[in-house]
Amino acid sequence: MAVHHFQPDAYKNTIGQHPPVLHIADGDTVITSTVDARGWDRSGEAAANRGNPMTGPFYVEGAMPGDTLEVRLEAMTPNRPWGWTSNMLAPHVVNPHAAAALPPSELARWTVDTVEGTAALEAPTSGLERLKLEVRPFLGCFGVAPPKEQSISTATSGEYGGNMDYKGFVEGVSAYFPVFAEGALFHLGDGHALQGCGEIVGTGIEISLDVRFSVRVIKGRTIGWPRGESPTHLFTVGNARPLDQALQHATTEMLTLLREDYGLAVSEASMLLGVAVEYEIANVFNPAYSVVCKLSKEVLSSLS
Amino acid sequence: MAVHHFQPDAYKNTIGQHPPVLHIADGDTVITSTVDARGWDRSGEAAANRGNPMTGPFYVEGAMPGDTLEVRLEAMTPNRPWGWTSNMLAPHVVNPHAAAALPPSELARWTVDTVEGTAALEAPTSGLERLKLEVRPFLGCFGVAPPKEQSISTATSGEYGGNMDYKGFVEGVSAYFPVFAEGALFHLGDGHALQGCGEIVGTGIEISLDVRFSVRVIKGRTIGWPRGESPTHLFTVGNARPLDQALQHATTEMLTLLREDYGLAVSEASMLLGVAVEYEIANVFNPAYSVVCKLSKEVLSSLS
Amino acid sequence: MAVHHFQPDAYKNTIGQHPPVLHIADGDTVITSTVDARGWDRSGEAAANRGNPMTGPFYVEGAMPGDTLEVRLEAMTPNRPWGWTSNMLAPHVVNPHAAAALPPSELARWTVDTVEGTAALEAPTSGLERLKLEVRPFLGCFGVAPPKEQSISTATSGEYGGNMDYKGFVEGVSAYFPVFAEGALFHLGDGHALQGCGEIVGTGIEISLDVRFSVRVIKGRTIGWPRGESPTHLFTVGNARPLDQALQHATTEMLTLLREDYGLAVSEASMLLGVAVEYEIANVFNPAYSVVCKLSKEVLSSLS
Amino acid sequence: MAVHHFQPDAYKNTIGQHPPVLHIADGDTVITSTVDARGWDRSGEAAANRGNPMTGPFYVEGAMPGDTLEVRLEAMTPNRPWGWTSNMLAPHVVNPHAAAALPPSELARWTVDTVEGTAALEAPTSGLERLKLEVRPFLGCFGVAPPKEQSISTATSGEYGGNMDYKGFVEGVSAYFPVFAEGALFHLGDGHALQGCGEIVGTGIEISLDVRFSVRVIKGRTIGWPRGESPTHLFTVGNARPLDQALQHATTEMLTLLREDYGLAVSEASMLLGVAVEYEIANVFNPAYSVVCKLSKEVLSSLS
Repeated sequence: MAVHHFQPDAYKNTIGQHPPVLHIADGDTVITSTVDARGWDRSGEAAANRGNPMTGPFYVEGAMPGDTLEVRLEAMTPNRPWGWTSNMLAPHVVNPHAAAALPPSELARWTVDTVEGTAALEAPTSGLERLKLEVRPFLGCFGVAPPKEQSISTATSGEYGGNMDYKGFVEGVSAYFPVFAEGALFHLGDGHALQGCGEIVGTGIEISLDVRFSVRVIKGRTIGWPRGESPTHLFTVGNARPLDQALQHATTEMLTLLREDYGLAVSEASMLLGVAVEYEIANVFNPAYSVVCKLSKEVLSSLS
Repeated sequence: MAVHHFQPDAYKNTIGQHPPVLHIADGDTVITSTVDARGWDRSGEAAANRGNPMTGPFYVEGAMPGDTLEVRLEAMTPNRPWGWTSNMLAPHVVNPHAAAALPPSELARWTVDTVEGTAALEAPTSGLERLKLEVRPFLGCFGVAPPKEQSISTATSGEYGGNMDYKGFVEGVSAYFPVFAEGALFHLGDGHALQGCGEIVGTGIEISLDVRFSVRVIKGRTIGWPRGESPTHLFTVGNARPLDQALQHATTEMLTLLREDYGLAVSEASMLLGVAVEYEIANVFNPAYSVVCKLSKEVLSSLS
Repeated sequence: MAVHHFQPDAYKNTIGQHPPVLHIADGDTVITSTVDARGWDRSGEAAANRGNPMTGPFYVEGAMPGDTLEVRLEAMTPNRPWGWTSNMLAPHVVNPHAAAALPPSELARWTVDTVEGTAALEAPTSGLERLKLEVRPFLGCFGVAPPKEQSISTATSGEYGGNMDYKGFVEGVSAYFPVFAEGALFHLGDGHALQGCGEIVGTGIEISLDVRFSVRVIKGRTIGWPRGESPTHLFTVGNARPLDQALQHATTEMLTLLREDYGLAVSEASMLLGVAVEYEIANVFNPAYSVVCKLSKEVLSSLS
Repeated sequence: MAVHHFQPDAYKNTIGQHPPVLHIADGDTVITSTVDARGWDRSGEAAANRGNPMTGPFYVEGAMPGDTLEVRLEAMTPNRPWGWTSNMLAPHVVNPHAAAALPPSELARWTVDTVEGTAALEAPTSGLERLKLEVRPFLGCFGVAPPKEQSISTATSGEYGGNMDYKGFVEGVSAYFPVFAEGALFHLGDGHALQGCGEIVGTGIEISLDVRFSVRVIKGRTIGWPRGESPTHLFTVGNARPLDQALQHATTEMLTLLREDYGLAVSEASMLLGVAVEYEIANVFNPAYSVVCKLSKEVLSSLS
């Protein structure tokens, strides 16, 4: 269970079967870093092309199509004292007539105090002068090589993960991906210091990160969509447009989880979800939207 | 500020400009009851036609089109010891192919212990034998007479409220509705003892309730969609299909709230929402879906 | 089989169980007129409130819930020499970013030459100076009282018909509606001299019409959605948002038609539709969109 | 302007920057063949992996990013006497409850008489015994390498073309694609002998084809989405889910065409589309749906 230090010097703007940057073993840990969505690194230098440049891919020994890759997000720390957001709602998250009244989007810079763990606008106008929020860093875009030898833009997402922009993928959470290619080929990037639901301005507070993660191969275990486990919840992620279909994927995957892992009959799973399911709208901005279907471990502990 | 005790003996299956059952003054409190979605009352007797029969409408003196009606939900208490749910996911919340494998839906009865405040299946199969959850009673369907003298089925919802099935409309929350008709004409019903997000089996734990609410007319204050205030959040509700459009309505209304009530510029409101907005999927079952857009009061307290 | 001449002097802006303006027998013909979408009549006078004011309702003797009402559209003739349209695409029919660049909509007047049967802009700018098109008058909004004693705005549509804005409902076509109320209660209005698919500027060429129609009650015949028969096609209409759901309703109704009227097995109906179905997007503007599912009579003639 | 005869012996299941099989010059003609969606060739042998295997890519000399590639479809002829379809509606084109009643899909074989130009089921059940339809062969999936060096499954489509399954791409039509990679890299396959709108059983009559096409590079001409020209119409294609978004893309592209090629102001283009636009639902089955926005040349001839 080695610990690898990997300093990237090139980045990918698609997720696919690219030559791996490092081979790691099942159980290993990697300490690395990611540049932000525009390719700006810890020094604020342009280190990669814009559009969610990825660190990786990492080849995980033993991972084969049909397996599941667990990625434990052990630490994600902003490695520079500022990030940026768009300053305008995406036109499609408001009514078409309201959208027509939105000014063009510009970038706004935020000061990120990594000691205090807070973010505030660098040059706020009067209405937001006192706004200071706790950061909650997470990876906006990460996943494994997609099925059918595809290489897919890091703008979007699918069964393989990708640009889900789910604010719940924070430190302490494990993500699970279906493996479609030998070695799984894990990519990561697009760090956000903080974001609300839906990524409705088209960005979180975009920032470069230092990341530590470890991997585990679950042999012979096949899942359909990304899953996750936090200290309090199990969850599944569906990625598609429109929201209705993203929700269908996430709910179907949770139904599978309840049947396979908890042995519930479909009516039992239905009734449980009917009274206890929680949804989060992870992103309603990217080409594929993302909906998260969650059950609390407290509720799950009453099963079996 | 009178307190009215109103015992309904007839119910409406549409929300519209029906003759009022009671005239009440601005500030008054009403203590009344609702039957469940199938019209079953506290005794389990069929007291009304199925399809979310409504208690009311209540005519609120002084409420005129263009005003806002606040309804403070002071108490909602199950008035019988059992409720019921469907036992099967709605086919459109899972993938079409998974939907084809779902058995037909049947009703399941739940024991509701109103002293302990818990719900459990009456005759659970083995997988759910130990499932017991805290109840969180709320009104699934309530609102005011719709615009343009329409009478609309209690199956659906709109700017006037209606069948939103939002599990956040619990005791201690205030709901706000735009007034479209003289007297507002407030209707209520469809109590749920407990429900997850989305009402994805098509029901909560359906139950009859004792309800106490008070009303307040906010003269000359015009809102576009239902709003609410809980101890921790302000929120807006958008009702439409598909989810994308429900989200647009809710977000647009929140943008309006931030501009009108907090004086934010559109870019300020956008940046605030970008880092702090929360969404809930209230229902993804009814003809109109409902999405809730929320901001915590803690965040809002940093404004101005 | 009487012929009734009915001159309206009041109009309804909802479709519902309003007191009938005339009782007619099964088989009767009615000669009447409709005002345009803003309530402007043959003289250009404001004769009704804006928002698709309806002529009617007409009570058809013998029509009972569960029956089908056939309305044969025998003649629709503009009764004034001008109409109007919006001059701007609806923001939601283009990409959100393109929508932001659309100027506000204004009304444009069209000269309608009822002798020649053509329409041209009254004051065209240079690009459209030579544009002259054949008119094809049709009813944008018509239908019967909705289920459950609802009264629904003429802005929208449903199983009962309503504001479908389908350019195929021209002279010589029969429309079929499910009957939900005693007497069916047929309403009509919102004449268009001409319109493309989708009503994507939010209007056709809006105009007042002289209309002749006849009715027929099909006892004991229950349909789920509006249907139609033209000289060349049978068709079904689905009304809902989004387009995907409107298409589902229309396709489901066509499947029912093929099974009930042609005795096809579901696989036979599927294969036939797979190679021969035609869809039209009737409207993508109103609160409920409308999709038409068509089969040519030539194809249908090869069955049985 | 050479004529190339190219006999493929390997096929691609993604559209991307694969090594070209042939370099051709601007203006050249290619005579080649395609296998069917499952990889079955003219002999019925499995010549490629299932999932719309592509012939190509063809590298077109001189085509550079920012240009447009015209592909003139000169001839498409079934090269074997049979094809196949699914025999069941896709579950998502009918109502969720109707979907639950659909039996599983099976393949049905059709006899394709290439002399007579007709198709009929090989072993029809009684309801379809007399069904015989004229074939109208077209390419279901074709296009150029996508942007950003992506390789994308031939199951779906985008700005680069792909699996649009539009029954209008028949002999005599020119298709236009935006060029994203040097040489454009044109792929083609997935021939259909006949199909209705929407590909609602998930297939057309799938068949292998002999194809003759010629290419033309339009230097410095940038388009956003695939376009086409038939003897009677100009059209644009939008590919996305849901249908609403596919329609937005197609309409936006037509608006651009009217402004750039006909010099219309946005209000002129709007009014023209309002009275004259036609839509076709090309496919409502694939991961991205396809909507076609059309204007007749007769209408267009009245401009300028």
